[in-house]
Amino acid sequence: MEKVDSLIHGRWVVPVVPSGQILENHCVVINGSKIIDIIPSNEVLGLYQALHESHLGDHLILPGFVNAHCHAAMSLFRGIADDLELKTWLEQHIWPLERKFVDEDFVEDGTNLAIAEMIRSGTTCFVDMYHFPQAAARAVREAGIRARIGLVISDSATAYAATTDDYFNNGLDFADRYKHDPLISCHFAPHAPYSVSDEPLKRMRVLSTELGFSMHMHIHETKQEVDDAVKADGMRPLKRLEQLELLTPDLHAVHMTELSIDEINSISENGVHVIHCPESNMKLASGSCPVNELLNAGVNVALGTDGAACNNDLDMLSEMKSAAFLGKLTAKNAAVLSATTVLEMATINGATALGLEDLIGSLETGKQADVIAVDMSKLELQPLTNPISQLVYSSDRSQVTDLWVAGKQLMKQRQLTTLDVEEIINKAQQWRDKFTD
Amino acid sequence: MEKVDSLIHGRWVVPVVPSGQILENHCVVINGSKIIDIIPSNEVLGLYQALHESHLGDHLILPGFVNAHCHAAMSLFRGIADDLELKTWLEQHIWPLERKFVDEDFVEDGTNLAIAEMIRSGTTCFVDMYHFPQAAARAVREAGIRARIGLVISDSATAYAATTDDYFNNGLDFADRYKHDPLISCHFAPHAPYSVSDEPLKRMRVLSTELGFSMHMHIHETKQEVDDAVKADGMRPLKRLEQLELLTPDLHAVHMTELSIDEINSISENGVHVIHCPESNMKLASGSCPVNELLNAGVNVALGTDGAACNNDLDMLSEMKSAAFLGKLTAKNAAVLSATTVLEMATINGATALGLEDLIGSLETGKQADVIAVDMSKLELQPLTNPISQLVYSSDRSQVTDLWVAGKQLMKQRQLTTLDVEEIINKAQQWRDKFTD
Repeated sequence: MEKVDSLIHGRWVVPVVPSGQILENHCVVINGSKIIDIIPSNEVLGLYQALHESHLGDHLILPGFVNAHCHAAMSLFRGIADDLELKTWLEQHIWPLERKFVDEDFVEDGTNLAIAEMIRSGTTCFVDMYHFPQAAARAVREAGIRARIGLVISDSATAYAATTDDYFNNGLDFADRYKHDPLISCHFAPHAPYSVSDEPLKRMRVLSTELGFSMHMHIHETKQEVDDAVKADGMRPLKRLEQLELLTPDLHAVHMTELSIDEINSISENGVHVIHCPESNMKLASGSCPVNELLNAGVNVALGTDGAACNNDLDMLSEMKSAAFLGKLTAKNAAVLSATTVLEMATINGATALGLEDLIGSLETGKQADVIAVDMSKLELQPLTNPISQLVYSSDRSQVTDLWVAGKQLMKQRQLTTLDVEEIINKAQQWRDKFTD
Repeated sequence: MEKVDSLIHGRWVVPVVPSGQILENHCVVINGSKIIDIIPSNEVLGLYQALHESHLGDHLILPGFVNAHCHAAMSLFRGIADDLELKTWLEQHIWPLERKFVDEDFVEDGTNLAIAEMIRSGTTCFVDMYHFPQAAARAVREAGIRARIGLVISDSATAYAATTDDYFNNGLDFADRYKHDPLISCHFAPHAPYSVSDEPLKRMRVLSTELGFSMHMHIHETKQEVDDAVKADGMRPLKRLEQLELLTPDLHAVHMTELSIDEINSISENGVHVIHCPESNMKLASGSCPVNELLNAGVNVALGTDGAACNNDLDMLSEMKSAAFLGKLTAKNAAVLSATTVLEMATINGATALGLEDLIGSLETGKQADVIAVDMSKLELQPLTNPISQLVYSSDRSQVTDLWVAGKQLMKQRQLTTLDVEEIINKAQQWRDKFTD
């Protein structure tokens, strides 16, 4: 009889790997930060004795979601400027607010708000791209969630960094301080081809190889971006990045709504990962990423919510549903982008993009115990025929009841164990009052 | 001091008419089935004394949603055949199941399930299109919700009607029995141009004028439907309906993903209402309705969820969000299909399509008290800047806490007052067990 930390029994366990598998009445066995076994619940007795045992008889147990792209702190700008064209939204609303208000406190409070929302909707790991990474990291540590924090690079001066050198120095200094953190890792986050010039991209490319950091960049978000680049540089942004030798398995290309067949083949051949943000692309009228064609070409496509300032939540459950809906419409084929496929995009594909596929993204023995439980007993899911389909197409974030990261329970029956929701809400309201003064 | 039935105090009241208005700390005053006043909460004392008083200090009070298109009873088929092409889905799954199982009990149990879901997500009136209207009406009466029930017409024999004559006779007999019901009204529901021939459509046209019934029909759902009609009839379905003199303000054209500029002008000139079902159109890869162009042409566009067998819920909150997202993407303009616009589509535009705009669809003195309350205090909506935007883009169905139809409270703090949720779930599971035997 082995002594372990936790046993999580579920009516269904969907490990994601192998694809589409649904185990009934199974138990996830956790010791320390790791999953050490997944067995039928009726075989546990005599094998394992646990400090904590969760009997979730109406629940689906699955790996936590990997939100592969967001700007966490921008949650404080939620709803502040909706239903505007991208240019107006950025130039007349978001950038002036950022210049006036974004500092370490803003980032820490905003990231706290974002993490609380992500935990409450089943995300156990997120990829962040914003200024003041040290403030974001403090929020991540306090919450106990897993994060990949981007070291932003831009040609523009901000309160965070006055020069390109500052971006590199601040970022690398931060990365060095967190290099042994078990839950926080870093990568480069150059803003976009139009906002970062060749020299810093070349410098980043060299450092990326030296440090083993991936590179995470908004690319081909809109047709306008591509057309403008052709006018300015005589070539499409992807071509320029190819010439700079950025098209490698270390690159996360976020958005990618404008892609020729040749470009799809090129990113496939070069092992570039695509991060798809369907709700952002729809709400900002950016365009449709050809996800089905990318998957058919063998490209790894992960899923992100983008920031709550544009989109207006960080809810991976609704993002999965939107990915399936938009993917089917774009491909003109209702049979593609199935519930199983978008669930993989929201879990193991995100882990793969981060190079963490041996640690997270599925429930497998030896992996980190990043686990969520979703209550499937609600009327809105009845009659329950196929748990994966009902998870993607019929459930909502309020059904996510429990969540663990590296074996530690961060939400228990909808109550957060590490964060104070009331305090987070109060701080968010104080920030709003400052913006609207 | 006037004695009244109910006072509903809300932090915000959004009456929908006038467009975009947000009243703070107001009270909706209800007597009998009607709204008799809307005034600031601090002016109520001394004016009204109520039997029931609801203080909803964190809530947004607004008119209940009008779900302008669904197939309620099909909720029993939820999740039974997802991620399939439309033809496979219908011919190999839904139609065989319908032939084998659909009877009065199926329709009553399925409609109960659908109504419970709709009440829990803020719908106070729905438009139904399915067989055995008398069974659906029993469920509607038991629940106390408002409904427009379609008298289905089809060329195909079903358990409900063997011939076209049967469809008319069964439907008209039903309509006659419910003609004085305060909450149930009827209209014709010919399935689609490809499934109803000219003679029954002509007969329906005459009866529609005689009885004052509108006509509710799937039209131009897919490009395939239009192409097939051109091959078979030498003209597009809308042209054929025009020749049959069906293009009038009595017609609800459901779906309409394939429309030329001439067709948009024609339906505008003829006052045809369009019912938009964005999530169904996406999940079945049917196409994109050009909603912004229709609105610009002055067409009344209402919103429906379609049936939960294809789509897989009856949630008007998520349907509004999808309508805004898809509408912006289709129009290539992030500034159109604003939160205010899609909220109108989900309320007053639905009422207008039904010819009930003097009764429902907004909170106005003299109208029926079809009212909902949405809790806006949740972390996912913070910081709360714009209540209409946050309602559409950031809230979810679990935040709808209270609902009234014609002044009667059907949901109180998430508890249904007229329906037994456990019993409905049990029956749904029994039906699933029959299907999968």
